Amino acid sequence: MTTSLYETLLCPECNERFDTNTVHDFCQKDSHPLIADYHLNGSFPKESLQGREYNMWRYAEVLPIVKQENRVSLGEGFTPLLSLTTLSGTYSQNQLFLKDESGNPTGSFKARGLSMAVSKAKELGVTEICIPTAGNAGSALSAYCAKAGIKAHIFMPEATPKVFQLDCEIMGAHVTRVKGNIADAAKLMKSQNDGSWFDVSTLKEPFRLEGKKTMGYEIAEQLNWELPDVIIYPTGGGTGLIGIWKAFQEMKKMGWIENIPTRMVAVQGTGCNPITHSFQAGIETIEAFEDPAPTIANGLRVPRPFGDRLVMKTIYESNGTVVDISDEEIKQGLQEFAEAEGLFISPEGAAVWTAYKKLRTSNWIKQNESVVMLNTGSAYKYAENLYSLS
Amino acid sequence: MTTSLYETLLCPECNERFDTNTVHDFCQKDSHPLIADYHLNGSFPKESLQGREYNMWRYAEVLPIVKQENRVSLGEGFTPLLSLTTLSGTYSQNQLFLKDESGNPTGSFKARGLSMAVSKAKELGVTEICIPTAGNAGSALSAYCAKAGIKAHIFMPEATPKVFQLDCEIMGAHVTRVKGNIADAAKLMKSQNDGSWFDVSTLKEPFRLEGKKTMGYEIAEQLNWELPDVIIYPTGGGTGLIGIWKAFQEMKKMGWIENIPTRMVAVQGTGCNPITHSFQAGIETIEAFEDPAPTIANGLRVPRPFGDRLVMKTIYESNGTVVDISDEEIKQGLQEFAEAEGLFISPEGAAVWTAYKKLRTSNWIKQNESVVMLNTGSAYKYAENLYSLS
Ligand SMILES: Cc1ncc(COP(=O)(O)O)c(C=O)c1O
Ligand SMILES: Cc1ncc(COP(=O)(O)O)c(C=O)c1O
Ligand SMILES: [Zn+2]
Ligand SMILES: [Zn+2]
Repeated sequence: MTTSLYETLLCPECNERFDTNTVHDFCQKDSHPLIADYHLNGSFPKESLQGREYNMWRYAEVLPIVKQENRVSLGEGFTPLLSLTTLSGTYSQNQLFLKDESGNPTGSFKARGLSMAVSKAKELGVTEICIPTAGNAGSALSAYCAKAGIKAHIFMPEATPKVFQLDCEIMGAHVTRVKGNIADAAKLMKSQNDGSWFDVSTLKEPFRLEGKKTMGYEIAEQLNWELPDVIIYPTGGGTGLIGIWKAFQEMKKMGWIENIPTRMVAVQGTGCNPITHSFQAGIETIEAFEDPAPTIANGLRVPRPFGDRLVMKTIYESNGTVVDISDEEIKQGLQEFAEAEGLFISPEGAAVWTAYKKLRTSNWIKQNESVVMLNTGSAYKYAENLYSLS
Repeated sequence: MTTSLYETLLCPECNERFDTNTVHDFCQKDSHPLIADYHLNGSFPKESLQGREYNMWRYAEVLPIVKQENRVSLGEGFTPLLSLTTLSGTYSQNQLFLKDESGNPTGSFKARGLSMAVSKAKELGVTEICIPTAGNAGSALSAYCAKAGIKAHIFMPEATPKVFQLDCEIMGAHVTRVKGNIADAAKLMKSQNDGSWFDVSTLKEPFRLEGKKTMGYEIAEQLNWELPDVIIYPTGGGTGLIGIWKAFQEMKKMGWIENIPTRMVAVQGTGCNPITHSFQAGIETIEAFEDPAPTIANGLRVPRPFGDRLVMKTIYESNGTVVDISDEEIKQGLQEFAEAEGLFISPEGAAVWTAYKKLRTSNWIKQNESVVMLNTGSAYKYAENLYSLS
């Protein structure tokens, strides 16, 4: 039996602490996401991981679920870190890896965050949950809610591939398709929520981040505790980017790693790149992007990340950068990747791959550096976006 | 560095041994599949698994690939064995598990077999491979061939969901859609093969079986070397069924387990149930099923398993049985499973679930027994078969 070292929930903006036994969303004073904090003493040496289960719950001490019986798990996490033997040659990269999240339950990395959020919601007695989603988060929420016996309400843009709706409905969730983008879906959801639904929108709820951060722990463990020089991540709301960075800080505090050389790269779509705007202006907040264009990489179409300060902080602190990718480039990248490595990655993953190539060409990434790219989801759910390729 | 204990390739029917350094298909004398045999002395204690990689290659000693550099791997295997906490209560089953193969590369358990077959083909210098497929095997072959730099030729029935063709083509494979069922696809393929394509049809090639058998090793390891009383498997050609059984025999020889209590259940579709016919007649061969009906569980539509004697032997030897399931039952089972457990399983997986219920109701499976069911693939690739459910 492992014991969670979860200690407190705090707002890093105003430093207020929140009671861990009740449900919270975000800091009402300053609209900042709340961050789970742990008692990171020496009681969780990395050696204790040996022989543990091969999913994200192997890091239970640094996860917020207090009682093991509250875990709502479908086997999420511990996805493979694949060495890209062909492409590393083509692009002269000493170490080039893909963290392939497509094999997670419901086919994406969203499983990690929603497993954690639903587990904590269960622990705190929540009975109904709602979410606006580009697709994958809705699938994951529906699945974990079905398992937990919690009612789920899903709001997705009309342009979301049909299979996501099927997926949610088969789990018993209630789905509303919304004209517009994910921000419009969030607006409609708010108008229908009389307060009885717990809203798990990205970073308006504290624990999806804790699930996502396990990617950071896994990358470190799979690289034998030598962090990569560069991590490239397809950014919508940015939970993964922030989460991986948080994991690295925690590991350093626990003495699992000595330093953090990693530069964090956010990938955006050319049709909706609010993070790029902030990065170019060198500012720490993000303005809403007006009229985001449709894209085949549905997960990238987020007009304004709610955790804007955390996203920008991660990029700046890590000496990272932002890269914009077009749908045309995504399609080319996806095809190239499949033929070279035998992996049919999601459009978001293909955006990451294309970003890598740009950064390598400009020598922002050097030959002797190690690079980890994220394929955040399964391509099969995007098939209707991609038939023109075949 | 691990060393393969692979020793010889033999025909269990006529006992002929085949040279392990050249390419073989099946025994020309008696049309029996060839079986890989290992030097199962004490040199591979199960304790040596500790700390190894979490994929099927952790069992390298009992796999036929001689040189590690010939492994063509995309991270296949070590899929979760999920405890079905809700349904085990509903149906009064002390231990009810799902081996969830949907997270494998290309979304199905076929990844295991084709990873092995392509690795061995690479080791033996093959440059072109062909396959008739219900879909998933074609996806997997295309992916591993892309990675290995081998040309793939895929023949699939017209009724195969479109995404499978996209999947194969994006990997650079050549796809032919064929009027009729998988046997018709095989026929057309044969007529187009001038001998330069290596045919990896189910059990006409010896090593897909070796990949599939790793499911048996994993089930044992995940159950802490206590085999289940019942395993339920959706049977087309039957490689998984035979493979799991082979793994159990090998483990017993190596002293990893003491006895094999497991009864092996083959699940068939009502519209194409040649195994059921043989089982009811108590015979050891299988006749071709005439005019197999289309089904949403594409993988079950195999008119005549080439490894018929091995399939029947596994069922008889293990005191197993056969169960037929209709498409209507599959749909109901799929929905029930999703709502109860949060898992959107493939139609083949839902056939297995429905078979379980029948066997539990008739008390062929007892309350105190442990049961492992296989979900062999991702539901997302079958979405076009399933929209009527939503
Ligand atoms: C496949 C995929 N990749 C990336 C993202 C963006 O993730 P995040 O919002 O955590 O930045 C999403 C979000 O929907 C997604 O589904
Ligand atoms: C999802 C799925 N399940 C089961 C089967 C049957 O497998 P086998 O031919 O090994 O019996 C197939 C074969 O295509 C399949 O794709
Ligand atoms: Zn605050
Ligand atoms: Zn023979």
